[in-house]
Amino acid sequence: MALKKILDAESVAIVGASKNETKRGFQAIRTLLDEKFEGKIFPVNPKEDRILGLKCYDKVSDINEPVDIVLITTPAKTVPDILEDCGKKGVYGAVIVAGGFGELGREGKKLEDNVAETARKNNIRIIGPNTSGMINLKNSLNLAGLHGAPKGDIALLTQSGNMALTLITEAKIKSRKGFSYYVGVGNEADIKFHEYLEFFQQDPDTRAILMYVEGMREGRKFLQWAYKTTLNKPIILLKSGRSTTGKKSVGSHTGALAGISEVAKSAFERAGIIVIEKSDELFPAAEALSSLPPIKNKSVAILADGGGHATIAADLLTDLGVQIPELSEKTQARLKGILPPAASVVNPVDVAGGTDSDPAVFAECARIVLKDHNIGGLLIGGLFGGYGIRFSETLALIEEDASHIMGKMVKKYGKPIILHSLFSSVKPHSLDLLRYYNIPVYDSLDVACKCIGVLVQYGNYLKSYHAKARFVFNWGAKAKPEGIKIFKKARAEGRNVLLEYEGKEILNLHGAPACEDCLAKTAEEAVNTAKNIDGDAVLKIVSPDILHKSDIGGVRVKLNTESEVRSAFEEIIQNARRFDEDADIRGVAVSPMAKEGIEVIIGTKMDDQFGPIIMYGLGGILVEVLKDVSFSVLPISWAAARKMVEETKSHPILKGFRGSAPSDERAVIGLLVKCSEIIEAYPEIQEMDLNPVIVHEKGLTIVDVRIIMKPERG
Amino acid sequence: MALKKILDAESVAIVGASKNETKRGFQAIRTLLDEKFEGKIFPVNPKEDRILGLKCYDKVSDINEPVDIVLITTPAKTVPDILEDCGKKGVYGAVIVAGGFGELGREGKKLEDNVAETARKNNIRIIGPNTSGMINLKNSLNLAGLHGAPKGDIALLTQSGNMALTLITEAKIKSRKGFSYYVGVGNEADIKFHEYLEFFQQDPDTRAILMYVEGMREGRKFLQWAYKTTLNKPIILLKSGRSTTGKKSVGSHTGALAGISEVAKSAFERAGIIVIEKSDELFPAAEALSSLPPIKNKSVAILADGGGHATIAADLLTDLGVQIPELSEKTQARLKGILPPAASVVNPVDVAGGTDSDPAVFAECARIVLKDHNIGGLLIGGLFGGYGIRFSETLALIEEDASHIMGKMVKKYGKPIILHSLFSSVKPHSLDLLRYYNIPVYDSLDVACKCIGVLVQYGNYLKSYHAKARFVFNWGAKAKPEGIKIFKKARAEGRNVLLEYEGKEILNLHGAPACEDCLAKTAEEAVNTAKNIDGDAVLKIVSPDILHKSDIGGVRVKLNTESEVRSAFEEIIQNARRFDEDADIRGVAVSPMAKEGIEVIIGTKMDDQFGPIIMYGLGGILVEVLKDVSFSVLPISWAAARKMVEETKSHPILKGFRGSAPSDERAVIGLLVKCSEIIEAYPEIQEMDLNPVIVHEKGLTIVDVRIIMKPERG
Repeated sequence: MALKKILDAESVAIVGASKNETKRGFQAIRTLLDEKFEGKIFPVNPKEDRILGLKCYDKVSDINEPVDIVLITTPAKTVPDILEDCGKKGVYGAVIVAGGFGELGREGKKLEDNVAETARKNNIRIIGPNTSGMINLKNSLNLAGLHGAPKGDIALLTQSGNMALTLITEAKIKSRKGFSYYVGVGNEADIKFHEYLEFFQQDPDTRAILMYVEGMREGRKFLQWAYKTTLNKPIILLKSGRSTTGKKSVGSHTGALAGISEVAKSAFERAGIIVIEKSDELFPAAEALSSLPPIKNKSVAILADGGGHATIAADLLTDLGVQIPELSEKTQARLKGILPPAASVVNPVDVAGGTDSDPAVFAECARIVLKDHNIGGLLIGGLFGGYGIRFSETLALIEEDASHIMGKMVKKYGKPIILHSLFSSVKPHSLDLLRYYNIPVYDSLDVACKCIGVLVQYGNYLKSYHAKARFVFNWGAKAKPEGIKIFKKARAEGRNVLLEYEGKEILNLHGAPACEDCLAKTAEEAVNTAKNIDGDAVLKIVSPDILHKSDIGGVRVKLNTESEVRSAFEEIIQNARRFDEDADIRGVAVSPMAKEGIEVIIGTKMDDQFGPIIMYGLGGILVEVLKDVSFSVLPISWAAARKMVEETKSHPILKGFRGSAPSDERAVIGLLVKCSEIIEAYPEIQEMDLNPVIVHEKGLTIVDVRIIMKPERG
Repeated sequence: MALKKILDAESVAIVGASKNETKRGFQAIRTLLDEKFEGKIFPVNPKEDRILGLKCYDKVSDINEPVDIVLITTPAKTVPDILEDCGKKGVYGAVIVAGGFGELGREGKKLEDNVAETARKNNIRIIGPNTSGMINLKNSLNLAGLHGAPKGDIALLTQSGNMALTLITEAKIKSRKGFSYYVGVGNEADIKFHEYLEFFQQDPDTRAILMYVEGMREGRKFLQWAYKTTLNKPIILLKSGRSTTGKKSVGSHTGALAGISEVAKSAFERAGIIVIEKSDELFPAAEALSSLPPIKNKSVAILADGGGHATIAADLLTDLGVQIPELSEKTQARLKGILPPAASVVNPVDVAGGTDSDPAVFAECARIVLKDHNIGGLLIGGLFGGYGIRFSETLALIEEDASHIMGKMVKKYGKPIILHSLFSSVKPHSLDLLRYYNIPVYDSLDVACKCIGVLVQYGNYLKSYHAKARFVFNWGAKAKPEGIKIFKKARAEGRNVLLEYEGKEILNLHGAPACEDCLAKTAEEAVNTAKNIDGDAVLKIVSPDILHKSDIGGVRVKLNTESEVRSAFEEIIQNARRFDEDADIRGVAVSPMAKEGIEVIIGTKMDDQFGPIIMYGLGGILVEVLKDVSFSVLPISWAAARKMVEETKSHPILKGFRGSAPSDERAVIGLLVKCSEIIEAYPEIQEMDLNPVIVHEKGLTIVDVRIIMKPERG
């Protein structure tokens, strides 16, 4: 594991070490000393003899002991020479703090490439550049400008120093949790997100990975590692730069590519990542997921000492897809036994003053509710922690006892409890006790609900997980040699676009049922072909020079008689000539008119971050006006394809709407998987559009296909 | 103003006064004394002589001085007798704390009605029952169990004591704001939400009204007052009970009707109310709106000391519909003059370390940005307030100076500033100073963005406001006598449903173009009518006993020839007979087949809370599967109708989709207004459905109309 040498480095050189207290090169050494780094520190500055009592070296290669990692605090342009010197020394890694690289445009990108190249040549791995640094909290290797980050089991990966500061501050003030590592990922010039993920996946001291991402260079590899990681460690991620302005802002910040938000979000979620959209929820979600067992049955109880909080929580949890089932009769009877008559015991449970004089009743209620087999977790909301403050001091002691009891309950029943307390900011001891037992406490009811929500989301992912399609397939191997011929022919003719009938041939080769076009070169041939068609015929011009066939009058539909076919043929050829008299006209394609059905659209394209992706949606206005589509990164399994079909809002239409017969959903899912196979088989495909596909009660018809190849490499 | 006597009461009797410290009847007196109520206090308890040094009375009517208001802390069943006694004394109002009324079902509701009736008879107005009480913070009349609520200019109306506690706690801990009044509205047995609103609208000490609502008894009157109030005082409202479980929870809590969420939300927003969905945002939104001028041009600048916060803020503000325009060239040049070269000056502005050694640069940047004519407000995000903590103590003093400068700036330019600070919870003096100048400070970036969002939302409402349609119309007066005859005829026949052709007649009477059905009693008549039709004809059964005409084979379309019409007539009659041999068959309606166009649906119904409402959407799957509809409370003006049409997601389809000609949007708007007129004219209408209406390039066709009357009153 190459990163281990760097992230667990036992010796560090500080290039740009300084005696000036305002300089990073001073602060870094100060911090390492203050936080008692367990390894060796070597300041590097040719102008100084000693800094903070440590011997100073002229250059890294002068150090006569091993150096695992180097922190470079000098300006961008000095970096390549320093790396050359580090190479001589045999340094494993370098943290490059300076900005002024890719994020500043073309000139900076050139320097960044130069740095990456120099590092590779010298076998040095790079964190950054343009990074706030990194911290290993286990051996106190603190190479970030941040003091006093709490130690714990969450690994933190961010592209913003301020977001790191935000999350660390929150951990300190509002939790008992902390971090195993912190890495400011910066511009990803060398080490990429997925490499850090691979390291944390294997690190025994890390239980959850918390990420703030502006853009990723290798989204595809990241997803591969995410699939593996989320099976035993949750990943919690906020991706910013969704909006146009946000994207621009990212540009000037880390120089990363801000991806298409919808694609990124669904790709992340399919890999089991918990995607967070509000920064307030980011750390709490990581706290909950790293502390508590996930909820596998989606079902939660709410316990509150006031109807208002109970009602708001019910609304929020419902929005998050959490179920709030009625408690069993037995549970209800037990609750009635200890609560006043005005209490509501169905779910939400409202104690209606039943805890005012004895907050221990909370623990009793919690036990009764958690014993209910239908309940997977518990949200407690309201004043707990504040009874001692609000009513009588002795109640504080009863609350502490209740905390101990509830804390042990979580372990015993293997079901999570999350608490909202109005008095969290007053920091009563009872709430700190709960946190000691891994029960998170939030002063925000919204945040507490979200945390229940992510436990349900993660539990649901784990439950529905079945070995995902691997990322390399060997499908369609038999069809491939024939398919390749079609692409070669097009290339030979200098085309990047397949003709419609060529596209259909590819689909048919792979077993996807594109209606077979017959090429007719004369009206006579067209008539003869049409005769064999059961029902109406369609005629379309075939010419590599005519892409938008309908627009130039190159398509005629609903042709029934011989004379209709004949005159359609002639009109089409005439129209094509009129449009472009030099057009290379191959003839006219004759095909059966598709039966009625529901229109769907399938499209694939190359995404900058995730490689080949696929889009699906119901045709016409649903895609074009209402943007009701779903995405996946390719390849996809049958299960993933089914999910894509099911998650469009218009899915009920396929199911048979208002008494009309259901459409052949299996055929659609099968076609999505076939498309995945085709994209896998022919890496030369840049874009493939099946539009429209008409889905019948049984089977489907692929009416039109457009395949565009990647430009040939010079 | 009747409520003034109560909410500004100068004397109060406590019925159920007690020496037991755990009783509400003790705590109430203790609180009045502690908080130095400026008026007189009269404990009432026949078993005691003195409580807390105050003379105790046997009953209210024994008190020999005037009593403005009574706090009743005794159980529900005692309330009617107490009210009778209060009546003798001439008390103006009573606060009824006890639960056990309407929220507990039928028995409780009976008691509640009894209480309301007794109060009315005795000229007493009631707050509650089932209320946490009320507070007047101006004269310290504190009749709620809450201590130490800060005084200020926000009026608080809630249906949850715990939500009141939440909001008051937040005000105390996180702001310098406070409250003018607090009222726990409870079950609204007597005084309704709108009456409180009327009072606060006129109260000179209230600048904003903050509401937590579970359900309202008189939503319609509330909206009328909201329209008036929001013109000079913002109303900020959270409505819970949206989800099914949430609704059930409300049921057991306040016994109010939890309304259809979509209807309520759009009704509130059309009245200028700021509807909040996250409880975390409720108080902050009120703080911002009561402290700062609204933003009228939707355009905001973001100023941050880190790219991460800037990017997240840009995403969130974009989601909220806030614009983040590029700063003018002049502004950019000025910013470049004081910031380091790495700074981003377009918008968001990222100071890129330019404030690290001198946070006063923030104030300088703020001034430059606020001077930009395109910018209506400023969001500052990041570390301000923490430079003194994070870097060097002397910076804290510079931050304080910057706070004074920025504070005065808000007043000078009349543009709001809102601050997010990571260090808010550490409470540095500089942040308190900002609050003193009415610049709210939040530790949550999400909340800070939302607060900018509500300033934009409110500014936008005020800007686009034009005198709303009054709530009483006199349209359609000429048509009404004829229309009434139709309803009377149906009643006379014992029907609650109009026949389709009767419904169309009503529409035609009011100038809405429903295609005229001709009633044919014989095949001959049908053929003769069809002859005069230009294009195809449609035949439909006419029978009060057959509602679902298509289902029984009672409709035939696309009829072209005489023989088609003749056989269609006979089939229809046969089918109807087969369905129900005793059906009252009036004949067959003959009408022209509608031309092609876009289908829309219009429906009206009576809402429990808001009275008559109207729904609009594009027909078929868009309404039924994708629920893409808009609502309004009736009546509506032309402008409101236009808004309804524009706010459906499928609106682009009407505008002309993919080169097809635009549909007649004016005709749709006109029809919505006509529907409003019809509902106003005939209060007997319970429900009216126009489905489908086909909108053409010019004009529209109302194909089917169903009008259901309210059940006749026994």
